[in-house]
Amino acid sequence: MDRMEEIARKAKAASLVLAGLPTASKDRALSEVRKALEARREEVLAANRIDRAEARAAVERGELAAPLQKRLDLEGDKFEAVLRGLSEVIRLPDPAGRVERATLLDDGLELYRVTAPIGVLGVIFESRPDAAVQIASLAIKSGNAAILKGGREAARSNAALIAVFREALAKSGEVPADAVQLIETREEARALLALDRWVDLIIPRGSNELVRSIKESTRIPVLGHADGVCSVYLDAAADLPTSVKVVVDSKAQYPAVCNAAECLLVHRQALETVLPAVGAALERAGVELRADPRARKVLPRSKPASESDWGAEYLDLVLAVRVVESLDEAIDFINRYGSHHTDAIVTQDPKAAREFLRRVDSAGVFHNASTRFADGYRYGLGAEVGISTQKTHARGPVGLEGLVIYKYLLQGKGHAVGDYGPGKRSFLHQPLDPSRLAWLEPEAGAEES
Amino acid sequence: MDRMEEIARKAKAASLVLAGLPTASKDRALSEVRKALEARREEVLAANRIDRAEARAAVERGELAAPLQKRLDLEGDKFEAVLRGLSEVIRLPDPAGRVERATLLDDGLELYRVTAPIGVLGVIFESRPDAAVQIASLAIKSGNAAILKGGREAARSNAALIAVFREALAKSGEVPADAVQLIETREEARALLALDRWVDLIIPRGSNELVRSIKESTRIPVLGHADGVCSVYLDAAADLPTSVKVVVDSKAQYPAVCNAAECLLVHRQALETVLPAVGAALERAGVELRADPRARKVLPRSKPASESDWGAEYLDLVLAVRVVESLDEAIDFINRYGSHHTDAIVTQDPKAAREFLRRVDSAGVFHNASTRFADGYRYGLGAEVGISTQKTHARGPVGLEGLVIYKYLLQGKGHAVGDYGPGKRSFLHQPLDPSRLAWLEPEAGAEES
Repeated sequence: MDRMEEIARKAKAASLVLAGLPTASKDRALSEVRKALEARREEVLAANRIDRAEARAAVERGELAAPLQKRLDLEGDKFEAVLRGLSEVIRLPDPAGRVERATLLDDGLELYRVTAPIGVLGVIFESRPDAAVQIASLAIKSGNAAILKGGREAARSNAALIAVFREALAKSGEVPADAVQLIETREEARALLALDRWVDLIIPRGSNELVRSIKESTRIPVLGHADGVCSVYLDAAADLPTSVKVVVDSKAQYPAVCNAAECLLVHRQALETVLPAVGAALERAGVELRADPRARKVLPRSKPASESDWGAEYLDLVLAVRVVESLDEAIDFINRYGSHHTDAIVTQDPKAAREFLRRVDSAGVFHNASTRFADGYRYGLGAEVGISTQKTHARGPVGLEGLVIYKYLLQGKGHAVGDYGPGKRSFLHQPLDPSRLAWLEPEAGAEES
Repeated sequence: MDRMEEIARKAKAASLVLAGLPTASKDRALSEVRKALEARREEVLAANRIDRAEARAAVERGELAAPLQKRLDLEGDKFEAVLRGLSEVIRLPDPAGRVERATLLDDGLELYRVTAPIGVLGVIFESRPDAAVQIASLAIKSGNAAILKGGREAARSNAALIAVFREALAKSGEVPADAVQLIETREEARALLALDRWVDLIIPRGSNELVRSIKESTRIPVLGHADGVCSVYLDAAADLPTSVKVVVDSKAQYPAVCNAAECLLVHRQALETVLPAVGAALERAGVELRADPRARKVLPRSKPASESDWGAEYLDLVLAVRVVESLDEAIDFINRYGSHHTDAIVTQDPKAAREFLRRVDSAGVFHNASTRFADGYRYGLGAEVGISTQKTHARGPVGLEGLVIYKYLLQGKGHAVGDYGPGKRSFLHQPLDPSRLAWLEPEAGAEES
């Protein structure tokens, strides 16, 4: 697909310019974007109203789910939130250009490992148009170019937002407009997933189905998670108040999200002492329990669980309940049926907690705390790019630093490898003060000359 | 392929046991391996002699390249090197279990980001049987299981080495033998690349063709590089002695490897002042120069370059030479024709160096130093797992830390998300002393109880 290749080439070229810019240039461009969006709010909202009118009609015809329509809305506080989001991204520290390690290899031969933008991000998201601005601004802040594919329902809103975004970048005179590009059709999205020569990372934002289908159709690394099948395990040494608090919050505080618990495991020694009160509290919170035969004996209002309940992601006020013989069985069950997202143990026994924290193979493993804490904001990461259940690059809630990699910079004085070896020079490998690399900052350069 | 799935499942199960083991247990197991290899040296060498005899016959029949035969040899110092390598891996610090970040989210709610093994590594390598032991020991040290596929020529040597390795693990009683498994056929290797449900990372070690074909046939992340097309750029402000030293070492010190230079770019202002002496030094080192028309004027013995010389990987005493009008042109050329491995600038102008270091999109970008320094040993990384030109997870020479990811551990006292928000509790997000997580170490636990 020639058009997509052209888009990807332009994105790559823009990313190389961006990678050379200092933080201040990127922040200035994002400030231009914020100003432009504020000034052209009516134009964006007019486009949004057309999307919403069409979505309303589609809902009436039964062709669109009502919640999708609601997420389209950019009016009032939604638009303010977009502007606030931009201001927050401007305030965040630049994740690129940070010296992670500095080593003196030999006299006058200095090695620095410095964070650097990844390059070109392919972002595929569903209806919410505010997500387009958020992810584009995170890309620019971290020095990456982004190719965005939004939902069809939000086509006009996305087009209006990204047109304003690109014009403001162009006006900045520093960040190329092609650092943010919008594509529209499914065919283009499919073509994007094949462009592993130019696109370095795919970020899907949307339903499990979207993420799963993207993971299955690309060789480009994907930052995301398809499932959030989280478990809470009540250990033999679980105390009652902590059990009630952690389980009810994990399940019922906001059940529609990936970090809500879907499964409750109970050690048989806690079956009669802890589970009845936990079950009653869950039922008071409106939770339907689907339990195995042993658990049902102490949960009279529960329904019988079937095989399909183990590993199910309800995203609703439903919880699978299962009795286990041991800590080992709980760990094995979670590693087998869970989605490696976030799992919690409730126990007063530090040894059991230690085993669980070490051996559960999930992005987040919690002790006496609700699974709902698995979130970039709550972790203090600043902005959340997504939650990853991958085992390479980034795992768990991912902040801006998930959008950078590093490169090695070596500063010498004519050093050659042939001078090292037995009977010749040898390496020092001493730690160096990372601030010695300050000369690399373009601002510093401007002062110098 | 049921057998491969069985192997992968066993590897995953072993990896989960390994992930829960303390450093001392892994080191004890590796010491057992070293002892067993030392004791059973003759058995391994007997297998190796059969491989070598067959390889010799294959070379005579013209069915195998002679260098491949040579790399099979495990006799004498080669076997000692395998044993020394094991001792070195035992001495290396454990990359897993390191607290990378610690944050107090609220009173009694402590978040730790801790390095953790990736899981199951699929390692596909060519003839050298010593590589089997090295990569298996690096996997164990970092807490990962490994499925190894070696070259057909080394089948008996690999089988003997890995049999000894597995028996020693089993004898250790701590690391499961299935943490290291060997597969033999191409069909099994193909099946391995499809098992993205269990295999977390593929590490190819061998020719460019091997790496390229693996990258093209798997969705599992690949740690490696297909090409090493490195350039040296002689800037307008390049001085002569540094130019000669860096260019000759980059090209001729060891031309058969990925970090040797394949292309020399020369600013037109250095064409007459610097290039003639650099060219003469290269020719004295036996290098054939393939130059563009302008460079040929000052390089009388050079051959004309054709389009296919730009971006070529010779791995031999051949160098492409090209004149550029500007620093920008040099950077653009490298980003377009290079392989994002390692590139160097020679200049006395800090501003030009800065531009080059910031804007060249390669794993290593060097100033006044030979590209041949791009190497895990020279960088001081301890052991090199491979060199990566990927843009996610790990880039450049990768040490043991490329074999770990992290997980988040949250330690609470019954904390629930429902207690936070406007008018309720708010997060503290204060840095914490990482050593507070010491209770997680199993050794500490043993003392406690």
